[in-house]
Amino acid sequence: MSYSLKNFLDLADLSVEAIRDLLALSDHLQRKPEPRVLAGKILGLVFMNPSLRTLASFQSGMARLGGNTFVITPGQGTWELETRLGVRMDGAAAEHVREGLPTLASYCDAVGVRSFAEGHDLAKDLADEKFRTMTQLMKKPVINLESAINHPCQALADWKTLDDLLVAPQSKFVLSWVNHPRALPLAVPAATVHMAALRGHEVVVLRPDGYALPDPVMEKARKAATLSGGSITETSDRATALKGAQVLYAKEWGATSPYGDSDHDQALRHNLQDWQVDESWFNTAASTAHFMHCLPVRRNVAVADQVLDGPRSAVLRESHNRLVVQMAVLHRLLA
Amino acid sequence: MSYSLKNFLDLADLSVEAIRDLLALSDHLQRKPEPRVLAGKILGLVFMNPSLRTLASFQSGMARLGGNTFVITPGQGTWELETRLGVRMDGAAAEHVREGLPTLASYCDAVGVRSFAEGHDLAKDLADEKFRTMTQLMKKPVINLESAINHPCQALADWKTLDDLLVAPQSKFVLSWVNHPRALPLAVPAATVHMAALRGHEVVVLRPDGYALPDPVMEKARKAATLSGGSITETSDRATALKGAQVLYAKEWGATSPYGDSDHDQALRHNLQDWQVDESWFNTAASTAHFMHCLPVRRNVAVADQVLDGPRSAVLRESHNRLVVQMAVLHRLLA
Amino acid sequence: MSYSLKNFLDLADLSVEAIRDLLALSDHLQRKPEPRVLAGKILGLVFMNPSLRTLASFQSGMARLGGNTFVITPGQGTWELETRLGVRMDGAAAEHVREGLPTLASYCDAVGVRSFAEGHDLAKDLADEKFRTMTQLMKKPVINLESAINHPCQALADWKTLDDLLVAPQSKFVLSWVNHPRALPLAVPAATVHMAALRGHEVVVLRPDGYALPDPVMEKARKAATLSGGSITETSDRATALKGAQVLYAKEWGATSPYGDSDHDQALRHNLQDWQVDESWFNTAASTAHFMHCLPVRRNVAVADQVLDGPRSAVLRESHNRLVVQMAVLHRLLA
Repeated sequence: MSYSLKNFLDLADLSVEAIRDLLALSDHLQRKPEPRVLAGKILGLVFMNPSLRTLASFQSGMARLGGNTFVITPGQGTWELETRLGVRMDGAAAEHVREGLPTLASYCDAVGVRSFAEGHDLAKDLADEKFRTMTQLMKKPVINLESAINHPCQALADWKTLDDLLVAPQSKFVLSWVNHPRALPLAVPAATVHMAALRGHEVVVLRPDGYALPDPVMEKARKAATLSGGSITETSDRATALKGAQVLYAKEWGATSPYGDSDHDQALRHNLQDWQVDESWFNTAASTAHFMHCLPVRRNVAVADQVLDGPRSAVLRESHNRLVVQMAVLHRLLA
Repeated sequence: MSYSLKNFLDLADLSVEAIRDLLALSDHLQRKPEPRVLAGKILGLVFMNPSLRTLASFQSGMARLGGNTFVITPGQGTWELETRLGVRMDGAAAEHVREGLPTLASYCDAVGVRSFAEGHDLAKDLADEKFRTMTQLMKKPVINLESAINHPCQALADWKTLDDLLVAPQSKFVLSWVNHPRALPLAVPAATVHMAALRGHEVVVLRPDGYALPDPVMEKARKAATLSGGSITETSDRATALKGAQVLYAKEWGATSPYGDSDHDQALRHNLQDWQVDESWFNTAASTAHFMHCLPVRRNVAVADQVLDGPRSAVLRESHNRLVVQMAVLHRLLA
Repeated sequence: MSYSLKNFLDLADLSVEAIRDLLALSDHLQRKPEPRVLAGKILGLVFMNPSLRTLASFQSGMARLGGNTFVITPGQGTWELETRLGVRMDGAAAEHVREGLPTLASYCDAVGVRSFAEGHDLAKDLADEKFRTMTQLMKKPVINLESAINHPCQALADWKTLDDLLVAPQSKFVLSWVNHPRALPLAVPAATVHMAALRGHEVVVLRPDGYALPDPVMEKARKAATLSGGSITETSDRATALKGAQVLYAKEWGATSPYGDSDHDQALRHNLQDWQVDESWFNTAASTAHFMHCLPVRRNVAVADQVLDGPRSAVLRESHNRLVVQMAVLHRLLA
């Protein structure tokens, strides 16, 4: 049975069966390409924030399926788009998403939108308010290319990576905070912790004080764990967390208590320079432990060269799997 | 009978029959797509100025017809292009359009060029001097993606929108100036007033003192009105203009007396904040009056939310029709 | 016999027979297009530096052969990429080429990379260190879109242009330095002098004192001349150089003694304003002499309008031939 999709906004919208269907289709398309299945179909991509993997892999994925793509990058060749409702538009933005997005949607068969967190109001970012406002404007299938609090394409690619590496669903999966020059959004950690819990892992969130994932993020993951038979805990103790880990998934994010205070975040980071993954982090991990990261990663700030260049690293497999799983998503949305 | 096109530079270059042929082909392609008719054909798009609709709809339109597109944006990934003749090029521009444009034209089958008014010399802008210099450099069909004084793609899309809405050609069509933080070019108002006159409307240009459309613009529209049996007048009196209007087409543009003096323009605008279309503008209009705007529009500066979000608004139909009519233009140029 | 290619990094990697095969295939594809030969194939283009011809012609070339393209421009829609090994990435670059390039390569069938000289360390630039580091990261065919010291696509297009113009291989080919507001890289002069030598010309490098091409560049060209029966000399005496020239190929580049000192370069240029090609440069040249330049060119700084607009100029033929020869390269790499 195949599961047609209306949108691809959140892995949590899909049943585990529908996720497994997408992963199976990903494998199938690698073995048996369907180079004309999306002939005549057009994907519009709207990037409110920069991209490398997402930009290239969606264009490539559409082309591999016979379809086409256009890219709109507000602020680069296109003016900035206003997202707030009801404002008097006398600033930099020349157009509102209420006109811009329905227009673009009317030119294509599906729309991908990237719109990062604003990083000021935690409740708004957790509710993905800006992104939801935008997606509701379009009567075409929408793909989340990373919103304030979600990155389902990354989560699906990571699930496939774990499958490819034959990582047992019951094994210990550590999501660890790592250092970065500045605060980054919660989208990937939130999507990752949910994905790992839904896959059935013993998930441990390892993060320094001040960087706990917000309650609604943990709660959503906990629900997924209940469903799958997995578990989820959090700690700031690295030794406890890493012991016996089968997967160490590193990610940078900003301080959450309080959220959105960059001075406070900088002050905390001052003492967290050693939250950079190097080989010593694997001392007590499983001998076959894998290292994962969604990329982009700052070498020798977040993760040491030796880990990224070493045999544990699955980062290039993850990034290639972005293309692979997204082709399945496009197929289910548009074929 | 079908009317092949050599270029698409100005709606005034086409007979009314040729325009009706393009509109009929637009409808036809919506009912009976021709997904391979431009297979192997390539459209080059050169944007000297930013874009949203034009950028996306031409890429989409070519793809829907089986063709391909490349985009060049001087200043973004490509260096700036010099357009002035005879200058010593020791400034920012690394290449002259005399080399750049024939080169690009030699890589494709048709070229679209966007080049806005410079806004200093009215005679030059009215003569579309810079744009004409550029188009004459290319031995391939050229599409005007908005020049200093014209925007034929928008005009054709608007004509189709009027047809779709069953707006009677003889009805009252009001083109009204509306406020904006700064002076914008005359391309859309000039194209709109000509289009409405050629369609046969009773055209009224409503604008505050200092913002009269230049004589050659009015003269060209008047000629079209003579041809079609329409009429054209202008006024600064809103009540007179709007009474019985079937269409209110709002557009922002800069002061014309004098032209190109932004301080003067700003001073005039200071007292023109109420030139923002809200529901009250329709009090004495026809009960079935439509609101039109080419987009992008600044909400609550040029037009109030209530109008754009209300049932009168045809703006999304207009923007979708950009794709629809441009596919007919591409078909007639390249098929 | 056809010569399949693994990469296209340097014309010097190819035998003269393989070059002639590419030129023959170029001609063949002009007469007998193969609009589906690369169906399903995807070319990734990575531009660390700006482009016009390369950007448009590779997209167009892939489309003309039925394939697809995506473009990544670090710093424009994508974050900047770090190229140095072993650094602590706490600066502007958010991603290292060690992750970015293998990722992009995994999304396509061949990758083109543009990465200009850094202009500080001559030995590094001559060794094309940065570019080689990047190309070694990718397990897919790589095309050099201009590196620190090479531009094989331009060289091949220029060879074809000489063939098209029936320029005898034994004739005198003058590569002349011309003025520019600032120091430019050595990639094109290095590629040009090698190409002309390999084609068998009597090559003369004409340049002011301080602008001699580095020894390894001359040495590589000399080797090619030995192979072909051509010759190579250098001089700062314009009269000697230009006498009897069949081709004058103008190019801007930076001072080499010392290399990378922009103040010194500026001081030298102060007295070199007359190194601008005008008609007088052809007084003692062959009556049928051709003018060549790779473009972009600054009019009336490097070359006078009268030359670029005159009958000697082959610059538009050269730029069109970029498309023509690159289609053959893509064909040999991917078909």
